[in-house]
Amino acid sequence: MESEQGKSEAIERWGLFELSLRGPEEGNPYLDVELSARFSHKNRVVSPDGFYDGDGIYRIRFMPDTPGTWSYTTQSNCDELNGITGNFPCVESSPENHGPVTVENTNHFSYADGTPYFPIGTTCYAWVHQGDELEEVTLRTLGDSPFNKIRMCVFPKHYAYNRNDPPYQPFGRRDTGEWDFTRFNPEFFQHLEQRVGNLLRLGIEADIILFHPYDRWGFATMHAAVDDRYLRYVVARVAAYRNVWWSMANEYDLMREKSMGDWDRYFRIVQERDPYQHLRSVHNWHEFYDHGKPWVTHQSIQHSDLAKTNEWRDLYRKPVVVDECCYEGNIPQHWGNISAQEMVHRFWEGTVRGGYVGHGETYMHPEDILWWSKGGVIHGQSPERIAFLKKILSRSPVERLDPLDLPSSTPAERYPCAGTEDEYYLCYFGVHQPAVMMLRLPEGNRYRGEIIDTWEMEITPIEETLEGECTVELPGKPYMAIQLHKFEADSVLREV
Amino acid sequence: MESEQGKSEAIERWGLFELSLRGPEEGNPYLDVELSARFSHKNRVVSPDGFYDGDGIYRIRFMPDTPGTWSYTTQSNCDELNGITGNFPCVESSPENHGPVTVENTNHFSYADGTPYFPIGTTCYAWVHQGDELEEVTLRTLGDSPFNKIRMCVFPKHYAYNRNDPPYQPFGRRDTGEWDFTRFNPEFFQHLEQRVGNLLRLGIEADIILFHPYDRWGFATMHAAVDDRYLRYVVARVAAYRNVWWSMANEYDLMREKSMGDWDRYFRIVQERDPYQHLRSVHNWHEFYDHGKPWVTHQSIQHSDLAKTNEWRDLYRKPVVVDECCYEGNIPQHWGNISAQEMVHRFWEGTVRGGYVGHGETYMHPEDILWWSKGGVIHGQSPERIAFLKKILSRSPVERLDPLDLPSSTPAERYPCAGTEDEYYLCYFGVHQPAVMMLRLPEGNRYRGEIIDTWEMEITPIEETLEGECTVELPGKPYMAIQLHKFEADSVLREV
Repeated sequence: MESEQGKSEAIERWGLFELSLRGPEEGNPYLDVELSARFSHKNRVVSPDGFYDGDGIYRIRFMPDTPGTWSYTTQSNCDELNGITGNFPCVESSPENHGPVTVENTNHFSYADGTPYFPIGTTCYAWVHQGDELEEVTLRTLGDSPFNKIRMCVFPKHYAYNRNDPPYQPFGRRDTGEWDFTRFNPEFFQHLEQRVGNLLRLGIEADIILFHPYDRWGFATMHAAVDDRYLRYVVARVAAYRNVWWSMANEYDLMREKSMGDWDRYFRIVQERDPYQHLRSVHNWHEFYDHGKPWVTHQSIQHSDLAKTNEWRDLYRKPVVVDECCYEGNIPQHWGNISAQEMVHRFWEGTVRGGYVGHGETYMHPEDILWWSKGGVIHGQSPERIAFLKKILSRSPVERLDPLDLPSSTPAERYPCAGTEDEYYLCYFGVHQPAVMMLRLPEGNRYRGEIIDTWEMEITPIEETLEGECTVELPGKPYMAIQLHKFEADSVLREV
Repeated sequence: MESEQGKSEAIERWGLFELSLRGPEEGNPYLDVELSARFSHKNRVVSPDGFYDGDGIYRIRFMPDTPGTWSYTTQSNCDELNGITGNFPCVESSPENHGPVTVENTNHFSYADGTPYFPIGTTCYAWVHQGDELEEVTLRTLGDSPFNKIRMCVFPKHYAYNRNDPPYQPFGRRDTGEWDFTRFNPEFFQHLEQRVGNLLRLGIEADIILFHPYDRWGFATMHAAVDDRYLRYVVARVAAYRNVWWSMANEYDLMREKSMGDWDRYFRIVQERDPYQHLRSVHNWHEFYDHGKPWVTHQSIQHSDLAKTNEWRDLYRKPVVVDECCYEGNIPQHWGNISAQEMVHRFWEGTVRGGYVGHGETYMHPEDILWWSKGGVIHGQSPERIAFLKKILSRSPVERLDPLDLPSSTPAERYPCAGTEDEYYLCYFGVHQPAVMMLRLPEGNRYRGEIIDTWEMEITPIEETLEGECTVELPGKPYMAIQLHKFEADSVLREV
């Protein structure tokens, strides 16, 4: 049987193809109906799960990764939905679409098209539960921000400053008013997807947090079968958005009812059901999950000491994303009140140690609209400095920063420095304020140097060309950095 | 045989009694003559070693610790010096003389008369090797400073910014120009003692560093027998100064030629020869000496992370003195260029974790006169803030600060806090900048609170009396502290 979607519009590479089908409404379609499809292009076959979207509508979503014609056949235990075939053309992606992010070169990331991806994350845990008005403000703020990743929960949040009920809830209710954990609420997930799509258009990765402990509704303590069905449902619905990352939890180790086996199982379910193998991790409170387990793609860390970044890189040989290093703000909780300067300092420290640092903001607000959870507008002073760091990184001649030593005749191993040996060095002095650095640069190379004031956001070129043993004068202030670019062969010729 | 000193002037308690004797000049008195004395008062006997001071003069120094009449008898393998007896009256100490410092209550110090001693140390490694003019400038600077302990080397220093030769050297020379390690140079030690005495009169403890690795003269690599004779000679000469502490080394683990057994032996020699059991420790570069060994009285630590203070306290149950946490300055070396703000921050952090922090300063100077080594004048901005901290401590109602949790309804265990349960709390927020703290104060008590700006050196009283569950507004700036004083019973009555 040929579906209505048999002749589809062209979908761009890493775009979202959606097959909508009519099917049974009776019974409990969430439990009773199994649905998936085989999408094939030449010898490549991808089999995403479908899902019930209410009102007799079933959908299967698919993200093609190769241009050309893709054909599909549905599979279902319901005759009405089984054996539906069709095809659609996949065309090359538009310039702003680089595909999903994957791990590249052990400790780094890139988009599927090879463009380096340097995560500059922020945190708005419950922003999709605040209603359209505030959510649209949040989107505008994000659009004007340096952030290209956001940590956000599927489930609503119950916590200090978070007492409001969400407009939508993920499950249906029984006549008694209790949750019917066998029925999802499609509106809830449609809304979630809308927001994931908004982020996609802004070029922002949605780091979707599947469980978290801050709960008054019972979503943190569901039965295992409900957890598992929920995971499969979320994956079926949103995995085809190219900007999705999976975070099994925020502070998994505060969810005392769950065992380590539960976390392993969640990872495995997501790993098995997501045909695109989006990035997977889990965020800790005090105890790290074992990031060495094979289904963990990168380290999602809560920790205040960014100096440990090198250690974590070496320990697991996976990218280090310090998603939470405390937030800029002024609430009483210690994790939510570091100064903007300290936040910027932590960004620089983690970055020049070869890791990636995440932002959050928790300034007290008369209506309890704190960015870290609800979004809204940003009040702090760190984001513009983070944007300045991002600009420096985007202009650096290397695609990733790996730790190395500043080539110095003064023992300099304690100043974190990153780059690519010989080519490029970015060294950050933090609370140290040397008035001078003695360099011992690689033989035969010449370098262009710049002094960076990370707080004032000023870049001052060093007038002299640097080579061999040389001395750089610095302003003797804290929070300074220097970068050294090797002159290209032709620049040297031009100069000569 | 009765000595000329048989009828002596009164010496105050913990003052210095010196018996000077004429004896043989021929041969090598440093090697050949053994000399000591038994000083007794009632049933107490103390036996300090004597020493040869050149020109046929032998001396025995003694610090009496009990008022009353002390009598003595010398002992020597030289008849001329043997069996000399005498006595002197010891009178109560003058008000500024509190005796030597000892360990008190596991992690703290007090003077022998019971006055709490709160070390506020600084570092001028080679100040006694700079000649009288600069040394007198250093003494004036110290007199105007908050510092009550100074780390100083016996041997001269060879290092960056330290290329000048000292006016005196510790050993004599052979005709060949080589050191005669069998003969001390009395002038060198007389000069050292003069400076220890200058410090004593300023109320400053002299933390005397017996060995260090920064050497071009051979003093870091002497034979064991020379090391041991040197230690006995130094102890004989200066142990009777009440303000002496013994530090076996600066950065002992950089002295590669010495074994752990050597360090143990040095400790034991000093322990056996010093009748007053002055404080003993050893300062590390990277690896701590085992502070658990019984002859170590306190921990002398080089480390940048003051947050570990609690751990070190608990590990060894001895006072934690972080003698080197980097220095305020601007030299290229990472250990010598933290900002004044960071130095003050580290002082506060270590202090409210129940430890004691040391200062040093390394600003580049046209004549290489850096305080950390040569003394001179202070250029930095941390000492006046350290003086402000010292003032707060001196006014606190408790004699020592032990870590405890701020009594708060917000989890506050990450804000270092110290004091005495119920009585007094001093809590420091560091890079955290809460705009408000929710307190949950011990039932039935009422507190007077103050907000402290550790950098601006301002103390702002909290107007309301604090009790039970209450909220304190804070300025939402980093580097703030609060202190809470329990009202005395009579104050409460007065208020009622």
